[in-house]
Amino acid sequence: MMKRIIGGVVATLGIALAASALADEKWFPSKWGPDDEIGAANYLSPDKVLAASKLVRTGKTYALGVTVNRLTPAFPPRRCDIYIVQPNQVGSATGLGPTSTTYNDDILNCWIGIGSQIDGLGHIGVGDTYYNGNKWADIAPITGLKKFGIHNVPPIVTRGVVLDIAGYRGVAMLTEGEAINQAEIEGAAAKQGIEIREGDVVLLHTGWMSILDSDPQRFGKAEPGLGMGGAKYLVSKGVVAVGADTWGVEAVPFEKGEGIFGVHQELLARNGTYILENMNTMELVADKAWEFLFVLGQPRYEGAVQAMINPVAIR
Amino acid sequence: MMKRIIGGVVATLGIALAASALADEKWFPSKWGPDDEIGAANYLSPDKVLAASKLVRTGKTYALGVTVNRLTPAFPPRRCDIYIVQPNQVGSATGLGPTSTTYNDDILNCWIGIGSQIDGLGHIGVGDTYYNGNKWADIAPITGLKKFGIHNVPPIVTRGVVLDIAGYRGVAMLTEGEAINQAEIEGAAAKQGIEIREGDVVLLHTGWMSILDSDPQRFGKAEPGLGMGGAKYLVSKGVVAVGADTWGVEAVPFEKGEGIFGVHQELLARNGTYILENMNTMELVADKAWEFLFVLGQPRYEGAVQAMINPVAIR
Amino acid sequence: MMKRIIGGVVATLGIALAASALADEKWFPSKWGPDDEIGAANYLSPDKVLAASKLVRTGKTYALGVTVNRLTPAFPPRRCDIYIVQPNQVGSATGLGPTSTTYNDDILNCWIGIGSQIDGLGHIGVGDTYYNGNKWADIAPITGLKKFGIHNVPPIVTRGVVLDIAGYRGVAMLTEGEAINQAEIEGAAAKQGIEIREGDVVLLHTGWMSILDSDPQRFGKAEPGLGMGGAKYLVSKGVVAVGADTWGVEAVPFEKGEGIFGVHQELLARNGTYILENMNTMELVADKAWEFLFVLGQPRYEGAVQAMINPVAIR
Amino acid sequence: MMKRIIGGVVATLGIALAASALADEKWFPSKWGPDDEIGAANYLSPDKVLAASKLVRTGKTYALGVTVNRLTPAFPPRRCDIYIVQPNQVGSATGLGPTSTTYNDDILNCWIGIGSQIDGLGHIGVGDTYYNGNKWADIAPITGLKKFGIHNVPPIVTRGVVLDIAGYRGVAMLTEGEAINQAEIEGAAAKQGIEIREGDVVLLHTGWMSILDSDPQRFGKAEPGLGMGGAKYLVSKGVVAVGADTWGVEAVPFEKGEGIFGVHQELLARNGTYILENMNTMELVADKAWEFLFVLGQPRYEGAVQAMINPVAIR
Repeated sequence: MMKRIIGGVVATLGIALAASALADEKWFPSKWGPDDEIGAANYLSPDKVLAASKLVRTGKTYALGVTVNRLTPAFPPRRCDIYIVQPNQVGSATGLGPTSTTYNDDILNCWIGIGSQIDGLGHIGVGDTYYNGNKWADIAPITGLKKFGIHNVPPIVTRGVVLDIAGYRGVAMLTEGEAINQAEIEGAAAKQGIEIREGDVVLLHTGWMSILDSDPQRFGKAEPGLGMGGAKYLVSKGVVAVGADTWGVEAVPFEKGEGIFGVHQELLARNGTYILENMNTMELVADKAWEFLFVLGQPRYEGAVQAMINPVAIR
Repeated sequence: MMKRIIGGVVATLGIALAASALADEKWFPSKWGPDDEIGAANYLSPDKVLAASKLVRTGKTYALGVTVNRLTPAFPPRRCDIYIVQPNQVGSATGLGPTSTTYNDDILNCWIGIGSQIDGLGHIGVGDTYYNGNKWADIAPITGLKKFGIHNVPPIVTRGVVLDIAGYRGVAMLTEGEAINQAEIEGAAAKQGIEIREGDVVLLHTGWMSILDSDPQRFGKAEPGLGMGGAKYLVSKGVVAVGADTWGVEAVPFEKGEGIFGVHQELLARNGTYILENMNTMELVADKAWEFLFVLGQPRYEGAVQAMINPVAIR
Repeated sequence: MMKRIIGGVVATLGIALAASALADEKWFPSKWGPDDEIGAANYLSPDKVLAASKLVRTGKTYALGVTVNRLTPAFPPRRCDIYIVQPNQVGSATGLGPTSTTYNDDILNCWIGIGSQIDGLGHIGVGDTYYNGNKWADIAPITGLKKFGIHNVPPIVTRGVVLDIAGYRGVAMLTEGEAINQAEIEGAAAKQGIEIREGDVVLLHTGWMSILDSDPQRFGKAEPGLGMGGAKYLVSKGVVAVGADTWGVEAVPFEKGEGIFGVHQELLARNGTYILENMNTMELVADKAWEFLFVLGQPRYEGAVQAMINPVAIR
Repeated sequence: MMKRIIGGVVATLGIALAASALADEKWFPSKWGPDDEIGAANYLSPDKVLAASKLVRTGKTYALGVTVNRLTPAFPPRRCDIYIVQPNQVGSATGLGPTSTTYNDDILNCWIGIGSQIDGLGHIGVGDTYYNGNKWADIAPITGLKKFGIHNVPPIVTRGVVLDIAGYRGVAMLTEGEAINQAEIEGAAAKQGIEIREGDVVLLHTGWMSILDSDPQRFGKAEPGLGMGGAKYLVSKGVVAVGADTWGVEAVPFEKGEGIFGVHQELLARNGTYILENMNTMELVADKAWEFLFVLGQPRYEGAVQAMINPVAIR
């Protein structure tokens, strides 16, 4: 028996070494203190809102959220069903009361992580450790996150910028696994004549969404996206959130050596930077609307990890 | 047998007469033509967006949506459950891949019509007739509305105004069934020194939300709210949407003679005016933030009747 | 205006005539009185149970229910998802308490009408009229049937017989739309040397289930099955329920002139005879187990229309 | 750093020791071999079916399952909603086709573990180890158990016995935490003049269900039930399943020193013995129907942990 125990300890030690290497990084407490729960949303400020409001020059608005239905490709086994119901109104249109009121209602049986969504800081961890050093087991009961519930994220109202990475590369669409790193980000920004500032929401246009309807299987299986270097660079700039016109924002297949959804870990867990998936950047790019007032008020399910969203760009 | 048929016809005739009286109102085609599907959202325009953006003077933002959970009172039998899940990660925190990626995800089993929500134009009908004369049976399959799906509503970005009806009445909170009509709307606006303009979103502050947490049963059973006269007045002003800090916006118990949810019928079906329920107006009123930039990008479930929302007021 | 009303009346009259023709059939009150809610389950009796128990001669049991999963073909838009969850047990296997209790649980987001199922008497109506003359609007609130809820059906324990219609026809499998009527039923019974008695559950073996896994699309799109003549014949025999190895028991495409799911109407609404869908009759037929003790205890969701079942044949 | 690692190892060792103590029990491989997946269902046999069928003497049947609805008390956060829907039939009762077919359908948003249920062998583990030594992580993906899915349990048709523990104790109802152990089981069996045999399903009547409707809160918070000694005794007898008229079968609060749901661990994980919860034993006891033919065909959701059931006792 002893042998079995010792073997177990040794095996466990291997794991402990790996885990401790990760722990050595000292990525918590967060720069906003050990009690912080909103991460990069701390960069938001009335001054930045005011400044961003000056970017509105034409009054054109852009819905950055895509339409979601049963067929929207999503990370398995995510699914989304909606049912339109007419409670207690069978067989007649005479409806309720003297004015014949009839009505439709709707029920969602739906994973939140489908279509356009914001990933909250409780979505991804490094082992059992989540943003700001919180332990997984402490925050994730089945009835709702105890910390980082999406309902606690304040409205994200700030300057938004879109980087036309596809345009910078001179292609209509990047391909699977193509990573966007510092050079591409700086290059695209320079070409567009914009700079990235603290408090910004940065959206990457890869062109990938152009195949969402025409080839949903390819769309959902892999994607171009942010690389680890790009993620660290954007974090260093103090952005509030990073979005893209892809389902997962980061390059898939993942960059060599960067783990599984390592960019998610870098952004969410280590730095409290929000991720915005499936952002429709097509019209912004077509209009060369490189900077704009970005407004996101996400639905506030208590303790939700994510939210289905439709941010608005205003210009 | 013949007698029974004739009886049936006569009974049917009674219904036909009632229905025809309603039909006589000639409330369709809509003022935006027989093919219109977005109603008062047609009032939105870049000019109004641009003008509203000038209302941003301090950069303060307001989340108008409330937090929703299992206990949020709602029209029966509406319910909302969220489940936080860790797909395929049982029994260990070593996670996926060399960087130990772990994650939480979430599933909603939820009626949309709970908490802060926008009622789309397909929510309420007059018998079998919906906005712009559309027939109920033509638009409401169980898998999603064929017309008036909430995904088709453009971002609502415009001037918002809040009317402090409670303040105008000199009370902290209006009471059940208390109807807000033209006199109160004009009176409150005058007292606050603001006017209601075409394209506005108008929010009524009744104080009712102050009991949402402390007495959810009372909150959900009845409410003060818009009366028929007030609804017609706001429609005449050309507002895009009417909201309130109550679950149903209109006075419940209903005004005498106005039917069951007659104000809903007036706003949604007859005039294509959107309804915004459970809007948290408390901080706006505390700040006397009477007018502001209103921004709503609702999640875009295809064919949904309603959407859970969290509009943002910016000032 | 008057013209429109009159037109409406005439149109309504047309409907009324059609409806009255149906009404003329005098199919209610039921033979078990105007208050009956269980229909052919009234044929069940202790005597028949006792007699059927004598059919047990080898002690072999047969699960007549099929396995259901996400891919099981079903009438659109029916879907079925199951989620295995580990509530509040993230990141560790140390579990609860000193004995390290861990557990899995499961959540169903599922239409009941998938896979092996019993159709209750509230499933299908003739216009607004359901079994025993009940009005649709009186029995079908969204939260559960007021009458004919599946929870009220007593255990169906009685003699079961399987008719090998495919064998009688000399084929491995009947084809789409092929109707089984009195001649086939009598012929198969005679060939097998069995008779159909009052209180029996009769299962039709068409062979159709042999393609359930190999060609689910074909399986779900159409089917051989009971014709109207066969349905009336079985009703005349006083059977409690009719089942088959198909998703809908009746022939699809429907027999000419028999309407849409007319056999369902005949069995459920007009005669209170239960329908058992997707019954796995393969092994019974392979064993020539023509008669047996049939036992069905269906899950008792209050007010459910149907139930997912797995009846047991014992021989 | 090294110190932290070593500390981790030591801490881990503590856990390993605890786990190894449990592991030392050598409760696997199972008595039916290392590949067995059905546990005590191996006791079932045609001979026992045949013998049990002889217990049918009056032909009376008993539905052992209770009715389940929204209010049925259950282990938090389990909930169960059913929705009755009329797909695509709004506003009229003319229905489909020339015979005016109308229909109701039903959708379940429901935890399976509510009301009368069978716990499969994948429900409860000892740390990361489940029945027959299977590792938790290997068997429990979110889309369905890989082993011990309830769909694989054969029909449980065998001799059933009910032990009137309340009667043996001379009370109408046992109280919270009252444990039923070998003495009570033997005593009740002796008083009733029956013996417990290999292959039996044993149901314990505590009277607890008499308060299910009148005091659901008390019913669901605690319960009398099987103690560890009783569990071991029944296992030694070779029973297939143990049920009771309580929500969890075992005594709650748990017996001192027996852990959290330790009886569940003993029955399911260590011995492959099924658990039947919320069995309605009232009428059996009233009839002194001490032994009977027990028949359970559970719905076969692929990979489900549990199933909602309604076993039938026949006598």
